[in-house]
Amino acid sequence: MQGGTVGQPGPTLNTVAEAIGVSRQTVSNAINAPAKLSPATLALVEAEIRQQGYRPNNRARCLRIQRSCLLGYCAPRPAEAISGVMDQFVRAITTAAERRGHHILLFSEQSEHQGVDVPPMAVHEDLFAHRVVDGFVISDTDLGDRRQRWFAERRVPFAAFGRRWQQPELGPWVDVDGAAGTESAVAHVAAEGHRRIAYLGWPEGSGTGDDRRSGWQRACAARGLDTRLVATASNGIEEGRALADGLLDLAGPPTAFVCVSDGFAIGCLQAVRERGLEPGRDVAVVGFDDSPAAELPGIGLTSVRQPVEQAGDAVVEMVTDVLADPGRRHPGLLIPPTLVVRTSSVRTP
Amino acid sequence: MQGGTVGQPGPTLNTVAEAIGVSRQTVSNAINAPAKLSPATLALVEAEIRQQGYRPNNRARCLRIQRSCLLGYCAPRPAEAISGVMDQFVRAITTAAERRGHHILLFSEQSEHQGVDVPPMAVHEDLFAHRVVDGFVISDTDLGDRRQRWFAERRVPFAAFGRRWQQPELGPWVDVDGAAGTESAVAHVAAEGHRRIAYLGWPEGSGTGDDRRSGWQRACAARGLDTRLVATASNGIEEGRALADGLLDLAGPPTAFVCVSDGFAIGCLQAVRERGLEPGRDVAVVGFDDSPAAELPGIGLTSVRQPVEQAGDAVVEMVTDVLADPGRRHPGLLIPPTLVVRTSSVRTP
Repeated sequence: MQGGTVGQPGPTLNTVAEAIGVSRQTVSNAINAPAKLSPATLALVEAEIRQQGYRPNNRARCLRIQRSCLLGYCAPRPAEAISGVMDQFVRAITTAAERRGHHILLFSEQSEHQGVDVPPMAVHEDLFAHRVVDGFVISDTDLGDRRQRWFAERRVPFAAFGRRWQQPELGPWVDVDGAAGTESAVAHVAAEGHRRIAYLGWPEGSGTGDDRRSGWQRACAARGLDTRLVATASNGIEEGRALADGLLDLAGPPTAFVCVSDGFAIGCLQAVRERGLEPGRDVAVVGFDDSPAAELPGIGLTSVRQPVEQAGDAVVEMVTDVLADPGRRHPGLLIPPTLVVRTSSVRTP
Repeated sequence: MQGGTVGQPGPTLNTVAEAIGVSRQTVSNAINAPAKLSPATLALVEAEIRQQGYRPNNRARCLRIQRSCLLGYCAPRPAEAISGVMDQFVRAITTAAERRGHHILLFSEQSEHQGVDVPPMAVHEDLFAHRVVDGFVISDTDLGDRRQRWFAERRVPFAAFGRRWQQPELGPWVDVDGAAGTESAVAHVAAEGHRRIAYLGWPEGSGTGDDRRSGWQRACAARGLDTRLVATASNGIEEGRALADGLLDLAGPPTAFVCVSDGFAIGCLQAVRERGLEPGRDVAVVGFDDSPAAELPGIGLTSVRQPVEQAGDAVVEMVTDVLADPGRRHPGLLIPPTLVVRTSSVRTP
């Protein structure tokens, strides 16, 4: 290495400490354990840190505590090309990790490598056994997910975005309250005057899908509405269009659709338009995820927004807390989503 | 660690070598340097590797050669919410790195950390100086980009997706031939009978934008068409709509638009529809990137597709080649894009 800032003279823990007459440990605490200081001392140290332009050498700290300060994250294959939610999540955990002195090591789902089958969790195991990462963030959890037990049995630090939907939940998790999301969707279209509110969902047996469906069902039942207007398929715009078509062919067709995904909802918009009906004015459509596509002109989809940044921040905080204190137990954190209303669900614009 | 595959008895380099009567080094070569073996020997070893289910212990190899086998990648802030191209690129380099025994360490652009300014390249420098990563992949290069020189002066291995648009280019790079992409867009709409073909672009001075504009200009000039139908702004759907509106207000308005981005093109579609015109039938619109949004029903946007997977694979191959042989020089690699034709540019469906 030539030039640059590493190893150059400049502000250090000591220069900050000396300038304001506190100990080196006090400056270190201001950075790594601010709760240990009084607000006045913390403010004094932080002002001097900014004044000197001191940047903590995080890597030296990692070496000292014999950690890599890396968190592994296995990026799932994108379920829907349009979703973009998982990409937002990757960005969220990347910046959240950095705020806590860590980086994200990204890897991919591998079922085979050079023609040889790769067992589940083999990459996780390699990375942890060789101390390449200190722990993991996982996402896309499913009913009875086995990863949490795998981590727990090996005492591998982790935190999950998503539940395993079986008691007891294992290890720290954060999830979005999907049922609350679909309940708010039903409340919204019911307030627009709809009484025949259908649900386009995934087949039973996926924790996330069952959760979202339960919110729709509960909200309809509470209003005395028909809860038999359900059609299911796996993801996809074309599948959403076909499901909506089937329900619109009924003698008493729905006038509103609450969908488990934006892909289904965009297919549903297409089915509505192909019948000469106008989304919003004639038939209300609500998606789930608030994908970047939802706000495009020509789409204008009302959708349940997942607070992905907040989830990413919470899941990283949980795993770094466990790294700092292996005995630390986190209760699960359920975050409420928000309904973003656009033209697809509103009668009079 | 308990259970699992690491450290368990099982297939090794030796068991593969013994079974077919070759040396351990031959099996190692089959994995790490296949070009050193004859095709027949390579096939024999690979068949035995599959037969035994042998997975090379890549981490042991990294320790032996005193490398981290991690490549750093600084994820840019998303320029357009709809694009998704950079997310595809992250996935592409993640799997390409794994095919070559590496992983991607993801970090984010930081201009400040805890209230203190972070100098450019400070995170790159920290990661490399402390041997957290062996080298870097960069993207989103711009005119006169300084990162390549920074790497070159410090002998930091890297490869770039994108050029710096100044001679000499420094270090290995792969890029998409943007000018060829917009040329193919002009050729396509000209074949549909259009003679007044406008360009919606970025202000001059961005290497990528100037490249795409030059292709449009060259293709129009070659056909004797007006090359003054140009409007520019920074990115955005609303901006694209405003630019298109301005040109459609002209006495001799364009009947076709070639756009530097899908965001501009989607805004342009909106401007066309707001005048009661039909994209495709009345006015042709072509975007750039082939974002996931382009193929949505209600959008149907013709767009120039960047071969992102190929670019990601090439850029990772280049940097791992440099790691294996620091003297290795790669010429730049220019990949042709492909035009994906949808309804927005075709007169008769």
